[in-house]
Amino acid sequence: MFAAASAHPNIAFIKYWGNRDSLLRLPLTGSLSMNLDGLETRTRVWFDADFSADSFSLGGVEQGEESLARVSAFLDRARELAGCGLWARVESENNFPTGAGIASSASAFAALALAASAALGLSLSEQQLSALARRGSGSACRSVPDGFAEWLPGSADADSYAVQVAPPDYWDLVDLIVVLRSEHKAVGSTEGHALAGTSPLNGLRVAGAPERLIECRQALLARDFARLARVVEADSHWMHAVMRTSTPPLFYWTAGTETVLWHVLDWRKRGRAVCATVDAGPNVHVITAGAEKTWVEARLRELPGVQQVLCARPGPGARLI
Amino acid sequence: MFAAASAHPNIAFIKYWGNRDSLLRLPLTGSLSMNLDGLETRTRVWFDADFSADSFSLGGVEQGEESLARVSAFLDRARELAGCGLWARVESENNFPTGAGIASSASAFAALALAASAALGLSLSEQQLSALARRGSGSACRSVPDGFAEWLPGSADADSYAVQVAPPDYWDLVDLIVVLRSEHKAVGSTEGHALAGTSPLNGLRVAGAPERLIECRQALLARDFARLARVVEADSHWMHAVMRTSTPPLFYWTAGTETVLWHVLDWRKRGRAVCATVDAGPNVHVITAGAEKTWVEARLRELPGVQQVLCARPGPGARLI
Repeated sequence: MFAAASAHPNIAFIKYWGNRDSLLRLPLTGSLSMNLDGLETRTRVWFDADFSADSFSLGGVEQGEESLARVSAFLDRARELAGCGLWARVESENNFPTGAGIASSASAFAALALAASAALGLSLSEQQLSALARRGSGSACRSVPDGFAEWLPGSADADSYAVQVAPPDYWDLVDLIVVLRSEHKAVGSTEGHALAGTSPLNGLRVAGAPERLIECRQALLARDFARLARVVEADSHWMHAVMRTSTPPLFYWTAGTETVLWHVLDWRKRGRAVCATVDAGPNVHVITAGAEKTWVEARLRELPGVQQVLCARPGPGARLI
Repeated sequence: MFAAASAHPNIAFIKYWGNRDSLLRLPLTGSLSMNLDGLETRTRVWFDADFSADSFSLGGVEQGEESLARVSAFLDRARELAGCGLWARVESENNFPTGAGIASSASAFAALALAASAALGLSLSEQQLSALARRGSGSACRSVPDGFAEWLPGSADADSYAVQVAPPDYWDLVDLIVVLRSEHKAVGSTEGHALAGTSPLNGLRVAGAPERLIECRQALLARDFARLARVVEADSHWMHAVMRTSTPPLFYWTAGTETVLWHVLDWRKRGRAVCATVDAGPNVHVITAGAEKTWVEARLRELPGVQQVLCARPGPGARLI
C-alpha cells in the first residue's frame, strides 16, 4: 500500500481569510488562485500493518509532535473514508527554501491527500480529492486542480472544494516571489484565521468578496491585466486591513513589503503589466505578464531588502508520480 | 503697537511631508489644501518698550520654554522685517479641542504672522504674509489665502508661499473630522519631516507629487468629486507609506483609522461622494459633498472607536479682527 504524489503551492488572487467552521475549514468566502509551477512538494505514503504509529519526515528530518499530530489527524480522515485502520509512514520534500516565508501547507496537503488516498485504494473524483485536501489546510484544496482554481465555499464538508477556472497555459502570467528579510516569525495561518472575526472590517470584507471573485474570474477569462491588477491588489489590501485591525492585530507587512508594493504601483502607472499581492508574511508576490518578466525581475532585484526573487508560471495540480 | 487676527487650520488634499531646507521650511513638494471654517485660532499681539522679554499664553495658560522659544524665533523674523527690537506679548486661543489631534500650528502661525506684522506696522502682500507664516510652520502658509490654497514650493524664502486656487464658496465640500482615541502621543510634524529622507519610498513620492498636484487642482476646479477622491486618497496613502518606511518608522494609523478608511471606500463604491485623508495622527478627515454630509456623519458616528465628529466647510484665510 504505497503511492507518491506531487503538488504545487498556489498564490491567491482573491484571498481566503477566516472560517465559518474552523474544524472542517469551511471558509467565510470563496477564493481564487494560480498554482505555482517550479515550486513543488513531493510526498510518499506507505500504510503497513507492521507500523506501530504514524511517522512523518520532511526534507529527511523526522518531524516532532506538533507537525506529526496535524498529519495524523489528516490521515485519520483518509483512513475513515477508506475504512482502514493501518498506521502510515509519510516522507515529504519541498524543492523550495523552507523558512523563506513561502507557505508550503497548500502543496503539502494536496500532495498528501492524493498520495494517501491512492495508497489506500480510494478512487476519489477531483472534487472529492480537493475537499479532502481542504481538511488538512484550507488553501490546499486549490492546489488540486490544474492551473487557476476557484474554491467554492460550499455549505458543508462535501461541497466545499476547488474547481478549475482555466488551465495553466490559458494565460502567460508569472509570479515573481520577492523574498524579504523577515523581522519576526509570522503568526501561522491556522491561528490567524481564527482572529478574522475580531476585526471591525471583517464583515465588510466578507460582504465584498463575491463581487471581487466575479471580477477576478472575468478578468482572468478575458486575459485583461489592468482589470485583474485592480481587483487582485484591492483584495490583498482588504485582507491585510482585516489582519491589522483584528485583536490582537496582525502586521505582516514590513518596510521592505511596502517598498515593493509602491514601486509596483508606480511601474503599473507607467504602463507596465504588473501588480502585487501579499499573503500572511512579508514576501510580495509580484504578478506580471510573461513579456514583462525580465524587466520587472531586474527592477525588483535592485530594491532594498530583497533577498531573492523566485519565478513561477501557472502550474499543474496534484499528480501521482 | 497692537493687532489681533484670526486664522483657520487647513486639511491638505495633497500633502506636505519633508523639507529641502528645514530651517527655512522649504518643502520637497508643493501641496494643496482647504481651510477649515468653524475651527479657529484667535491671536492678539502687543509690542511694547516696557516688556523685558517675549511672553506667550495659549488658552489662558502661560506657555513654557519650548513653545515660547518657537514663538520668539518667529517674532524675531517679523522684527527683522520691521527693523524693530521690542519684546512682545502674544495671547492666543483655539476654539477647537486641543489634544484631540487636530494640528493647530497652521492656524496658529497664520494668525500670529498677520497679527505680529500688523502690530509692527508692516504692510505685507498676501504672498509675503504667507511666506512669513511658513517660517513658523510650513503648512501655515496655506492658511493665509481664502478657501483652497496651493503652496508653491519655490526656490528660496521669498518665493515659497501659498496662493488661492479657489474661493471658499467655489465648491460645497465638507470635512468631517473623525476624532479617534489615540494610543500614543504622535511624533510631531517638525520632527517627522526630518525623517522623510530616510524612507526608500521618499524619492518615488516626491517624483509623483507634481502630477498629483495638477490632478487635484483640475479635479477641484472642475468640481469632479470622483477624480478628487482618487487623488486625495492616493496622496494620503503615499505620505503614510513614506512615514511607515522611514527610520525610525512612523505609524500614525490605528485600527480605528483603518476602520474609517475602509468604510469610506465601501461607501464610495456604493455611489456616495466621500473620500478620506489622514495627517500625522490617527484622526481621519472624511471629505464629502455638502449634500451627503448628514448621511455620512450619521454612519461615521456608528463606527467603533469614534469619539467625536467635527464638521468644517471651506473657510476664509487669515484676517485682522
